[in-house]
Amino acid sequence: MPLRGVEPPHLSAYASETYVYTNFTTAAKNLERVEGIGPSPRDWKSLVLPLNYTRIVGDTGFEPATSRSQTVRANQLRQSPVPLAGIEPTRLLRPQDFKSCVYTNFTTAALVSILYNQILLFPMTQPKFFETLSGEKIPLPVFFPDATRAVLKTLDSTDIKNTQTPGILVNSFHLLSNPGKDVIKSFGGIKKYMNWNGAVISDSGGFQVMSLAKTLGGKNSVTDIGVNFKTDGKKILFTPEISIKTQLAFKTDMIVVLDDFTDPKSNLTEAKDSVRRTLLWAENCKKIFEANTKSWPKRPYLLGVVQGGRFASLRKTCTRELVNIGFDGLGYGGWPMNLKGSFDHKSADIIRQNTPDSYFLYGLGIGKPQDITSLVKSSWHIFDCVLPTRDARHNRLYVRKNASSLDYSYYIPDKSIHFLDKNPISRFCDCHLCQNYSRSYLAHLFRIKEMTALRLATIHNLRFYSELMRKLRHV
Amino acid sequence: MPLRGVEPPHLSAYASETYVYTNFTTAAKNLERVEGIGPSPRDWKSLVLPLNYTRIVGDTGFEPATSRSQTVRANQLRQSPVPLAGIEPTRLLRPQDFKSCVYTNFTTAALVSILYNQILLFPMTQPKFFETLSGEKIPLPVFFPDATRAVLKTLDSTDIKNTQTPGILVNSFHLLSNPGKDVIKSFGGIKKYMNWNGAVISDSGGFQVMSLAKTLGGKNSVTDIGVNFKTDGKKILFTPEISIKTQLAFKTDMIVVLDDFTDPKSNLTEAKDSVRRTLLWAENCKKIFEANTKSWPKRPYLLGVVQGGRFASLRKTCTRELVNIGFDGLGYGGWPMNLKGSFDHKSADIIRQNTPDSYFLYGLGIGKPQDITSLVKSSWHIFDCVLPTRDARHNRLYVRKNASSLDYSYYIPDKSIHFLDKNPISRFCDCHLCQNYSRSYLAHLFRIKEMTALRLATIHNLRFYSELMRKLRHV
Repeated sequence: MPLRGVEPPHLSAYASETYVYTNFTTAAKNLERVEGIGPSPRDWKSLVLPLNYTRIVGDTGFEPATSRSQTVRANQLRQSPVPLAGIEPTRLLRPQDFKSCVYTNFTTAALVSILYNQILLFPMTQPKFFETLSGEKIPLPVFFPDATRAVLKTLDSTDIKNTQTPGILVNSFHLLSNPGKDVIKSFGGIKKYMNWNGAVISDSGGFQVMSLAKTLGGKNSVTDIGVNFKTDGKKILFTPEISIKTQLAFKTDMIVVLDDFTDPKSNLTEAKDSVRRTLLWAENCKKIFEANTKSWPKRPYLLGVVQGGRFASLRKTCTRELVNIGFDGLGYGGWPMNLKGSFDHKSADIIRQNTPDSYFLYGLGIGKPQDITSLVKSSWHIFDCVLPTRDARHNRLYVRKNASSLDYSYYIPDKSIHFLDKNPISRFCDCHLCQNYSRSYLAHLFRIKEMTALRLATIHNLRFYSELMRKLRHV
Repeated sequence: MPLRGVEPPHLSAYASETYVYTNFTTAAKNLERVEGIGPSPRDWKSLVLPLNYTRIVGDTGFEPATSRSQTVRANQLRQSPVPLAGIEPTRLLRPQDFKSCVYTNFTTAALVSILYNQILLFPMTQPKFFETLSGEKIPLPVFFPDATRAVLKTLDSTDIKNTQTPGILVNSFHLLSNPGKDVIKSFGGIKKYMNWNGAVISDSGGFQVMSLAKTLGGKNSVTDIGVNFKTDGKKILFTPEISIKTQLAFKTDMIVVLDDFTDPKSNLTEAKDSVRRTLLWAENCKKIFEANTKSWPKRPYLLGVVQGGRFASLRKTCTRELVNIGFDGLGYGGWPMNLKGSFDHKSADIIRQNTPDSYFLYGLGIGKPQDITSLVKSSWHIFDCVLPTRDARHNRLYVRKNASSLDYSYYIPDKSIHFLDKNPISRFCDCHLCQNYSRSYLAHLFRIKEMTALRLATIHNLRFYSELMRKLRHV
């Protein structure tokens, strides 16, 4: 995170419920150093040190050290610290940042100071951008479709760009076998290899390796060292080190630790073991990442992955321990559906509640527009999923119900129904398909199994998602 | 054919081997100079009279005046000197109108008239453009790839345009079953249906119907009335009338008569029968075409198809009889390979020699770059083939040997060879593939069987062909 002044990992330490906020001098120095115009240590001494307040991050917001009797309402706070020259107040200070927060024993000046320097400027605010290694800032939230093997099925990189999709996800494991790490490295990274100028996240390959390990490697395929499996008759050991080094060779903008996937059917003992190993590997990954990026002028983001399955306590532990190791963001790992088959919001909430606001929250492999929407409303930022592209290849196109709506329905091209239908797939869509071809023609292409149909539908669905994310940035 | 002035190179095409056309060229240059003013009879008197030439139109080209050249005076021609402004030349006075006519001892006025109106402005020249119904003039020669079912496999119409491909061929028979004539008609034609603004030729479906008839209809499936066959359990009778009316409904720029395909293994009797039926159907088609386009402000071109297999006499007869019926062009029908498997130039030559120069000569289903090149050199104009697109889908990309060459080789993407090859497929190509992706990446896409590979390769091969045709326009 390009947070000027106080660095997120440092601030993340404040996320503990009982943490007493006493290190203000350090914070002040950091601020001063960076800002140049920040409050002097003397100001801080007089204003902030006496406060001796306790802060709880999460749902609860701020709490006084003493009683809850004196309340400053969020909408009052919003007025006091502004105008902040050059900084847009609403983006820095939103009602949800102050949800239920209560302050006491603060002088106005101290309060303003804290708000301005600690909360408004950076630490407590959520990330607003996903910044690529080349410095492009992509507004959040973002959805990155899956280009598993360095190609987004049916499209080329110009197509992706034209759908206004800002980034893609590639899969380390798949690329490791084809075309191979050395090939991509020789090109200077995955972006140059596939001639894609947007953002790229590489996943660790953990999910795929785990599936393969289970089917190919047998029962005891996962050890603390890594994942053992056989492919093409060869024994393979896939480790945190291999995963991180592969991803670093890809020169992607965000890389993901290797985690031990918790099977949704795991019992508590099994889930605990997966969390233990996930944390062990996360720590390894962090070390390997640090060691290998020391000389980099700019590092990619490093994402930790929270496991723990359906067990709230495990999700919480895993989240907190990952925060202690220190990452740029956390991913919602494992299977995001509960045993009843509906989206597991509870786990998502636990992760969010135990993660510093400055972290990216990444819904790995998520998902459906409604799931993304609800996660964005709970402050999640990044999503990837095969859904829009796979749906497109299986005749399912997303059509919003009106120009401004987030609601949508599926449009299924059907020649017998859309025989003479000259309308575009959606009149609320500006994609290449909707601007150029009729429902009748698309249905014809699907009926004759012409691959152009798959490409056009994929373009449409990706444009639906990029527009969804644009809308969600203003929700 | 807006040939205002004279283009010496194409005039030369009319010269027989013995004709000396130095003077003609001078006249042409003079004419060019006075272009826009309109030569007065006096000018022409001084320029043209001294030429004292005789002209024989048709097979023989031009000849010096001889004793046998005394028949028709120019002012006795069916088109005596008329102002041709605003009247489409080829329709007004075409080479067949002059067939075998011989001029000699012209009066000044007659000579002026002939030279200016009949020869220099347009009549005896080969077609230079393929003109669409909307008036777009596409320079000849042209290659139209096969978009059999109203889609060029793996591409959409924007892709086709970007390859600088000026037109496509669609298949009446395939489209008749899917999406059906009524659907396309309701859209106002095939171009609107597939949102393609270039040229379109529709073929008669005869070749496909014939193949189907043979496999599905049994031995006696072809009668003088049409082709009988069964498909989906239904008995179908496909006739010249159905073919022409379907094509007219498609609003294509050139439509093709239904012909009776001569099997390359036919003996003389069988081949004769196929020619007889081809001529019978061609006459029917012409009548149906005339009757159904009476009210059209502008008609599509109507193409006759020459059958006759490997029998020179049959090819000649068929050609001449078709010319007698009257078409805008003739197609090289049947199988263009001889029994030895090499291209049958002999038949192509017979067709050309017996066809008026103003006719389009169309190598149906042809073909390979070298075959197209040699046919263009023998004054053939139009080509279509599945070769470049099918080759692309089967890993064969065309790469010219240097920037200006017509020679080419096949490039076969192969990961094991092109593993680290950062070069484009061809450095002499400006296509989307060559401008954006490496050999390594394309080989990767082919290896993982990603359909984007097929699209990119198709784009490349089509660009190769459009560039080939551009080069051939200057050969």
